Amino acid sequence: MKTETTIQGLAASLNPARAARKIIGFVPTMGNLHEGHLNLVREARKLCDVVVVSIFVNPIQFGPNEDFDSYPRTLEHDQHLLADVGCDIVFAPSVEQMYGNQPRLTNITVGGITNDLCGAQRPGHFDGVAVVVTKLFNIVQPNFAFFGQKDYQQLAVIRQFVRDLNIPLEVIGVPIARAEDGLALSSRNGYLSAENRAIAPTIYQSLKTAEQALQAGASLPDALANIRNTLMQAGFAVDYVEARTPELQPIEVFNQNTVLFIAAKLGATRLIDNLQIKFSES
Amino acid sequence: MKTETTIQGLAASLNPARAARKIIGFVPTMGNLHEGHLNLVREARKLCDVVVVSIFVNPIQFGPNEDFDSYPRTLEHDQHLLADVGCDIVFAPSVEQMYGNQPRLTNITVGGITNDLCGAQRPGHFDGVAVVVTKLFNIVQPNFAFFGQKDYQQLAVIRQFVRDLNIPLEVIGVPIARAEDGLALSSRNGYLSAENRAIAPTIYQSLKTAEQALQAGASLPDALANIRNTLMQAGFAVDYVEARTPELQPIEVFNQNTVLFIAAKLGATRLIDNLQIKFSES
Repeated sequence: MKTETTIQGLAASLNPARAARKIIGFVPTMGNLHEGHLNLVREARKLCDVVVVSIFVNPIQFGPNEDFDSYPRTLEHDQHLLADVGCDIVFAPSVEQMYGNQPRLTNITVGGITNDLCGAQRPGHFDGVAVVVTKLFNIVQPNFAFFGQKDYQQLAVIRQFVRDLNIPLEVIGVPIARAEDGLALSSRNGYLSAENRAIAPTIYQSLKTAEQALQAGASLPDALANIRNTLMQAGFAVDYVEARTPELQPIEVFNQNTVLFIAAKLGATRLIDNLQIKFSES
Repeated sequence: MKTETTIQGLAASLNPARAARKIIGFVPTMGNLHEGHLNLVREARKLCDVVVVSIFVNPIQFGPNEDFDSYPRTLEHDQHLLADVGCDIVFAPSVEQMYGNQPRLTNITVGGITNDLCGAQRPGHFDGVAVVVTKLFNIVQPNFAFFGQKDYQQLAVIRQFVRDLNIPLEVIGVPIARAEDGLALSSRNGYLSAENRAIAPTIYQSLKTAEQALQAGASLPDALANIRNTLMQAGFAVDYVEARTPELQPIEVFNQNTVLFIAAKLGATRLIDNLQIKFSES
């Protein structure tokens, strides 16, 4: 496994694969890897000849009061993990390598689906994601790109701009990896105190409880209210508890496939999760 | 020469060239071709193995009161001209082929350099250019793309987002093609009455007069005021007469290389032109 830190170095490393028309798979990450990321790499390994993983903590997707400076950088450990799951090339550029010294004047916005859920709480966040992912796509030029369904809204945003801009690749969404107790894996879980780590699985439990209630005939507003109450009683500060169609359109009644979304803070740590719930006519 | 009207058809046509790693040159146009466009194709022919010309009147770069509906569509004539200058593939998609049936949610904005000159007169115009050119770049995936210097601000916008988004191609700017009397070639010249066509070369004459005056020591404000007066006396409604650095930064004194910009209307027809003026220490 190679590590490249420059765009030029990466291009040189990928050139033989491109010349041989090999299938290139790409997993963009911000590092501090966990099993969720490694599942993306395993999925890429199955479908592609060459697997590239980028590790880049992207400053422009963090708000001014967010955790850019403190976001964990663990490159050496990440490299060991990636070598073990069959990554071929790690691309770990500096901020200067990605954004240069001249001001960036270009922005990419995705309307509609970025206005609520995490978009409402994190203004500019999805613009920053769209810009960096577009840059990385243009640098790596993969055939397939892999993203986790945990960041469901991010995945929808990426699918949208890939379609709208005719970016020549296929986006693959990979199911959420969870700890044994159900907590969705996240680099931010490392911020949790032991006490809060024990409380955190309440998020997933409340989603599963809501799923059972909905399947048994409970109303969607009641199911959402129950999640909210459960989280508040467990000590969370709830950002949102919402139901959407798989395309992120608002939904009032559980009469089609539905996704439940939670964002909630435990102490200073903001956690997100979601659950896709199948609707079947009975 | 082939003509393709679908993205899939174009991909199939280009696939052998891509597999053989041939150099692909791309000239995006809105059709109604004149010698200016053909010069772009000739330049592409010199540098590239395969030359693709797109003909697409892009609705999203026209304002609500602009000439989208009446913009001249002359595909058959354009095809003859392109075959004569050695174009290999014409890509002439429908609006539906380019934008599909689902709403486009993604926008690309380029800040700073789009705020004045034509950007001030045509809100959203350069967003529409950035989106369609990015889409076409992703569809054609050329090594080189050719644009005329007549649309100087457009060329600067394209260079900017190509750099900011790491789009993997080189942008080539080609000098303005002019009629014998100096009028910059433009599809919109066809809108001019015979009388106005006779007046139109005043634009270029006033630029050349200003160049001589500046080289002889005239001040930049005086030179710009003279252009404005000349145009008004000839019957133009002046949109702007401006001086900028080659990077489109405002400039007050002729103490470096400078570009003079004119946009002016004759009747309902808006014409633009520019002249790059070399500064040399005497």
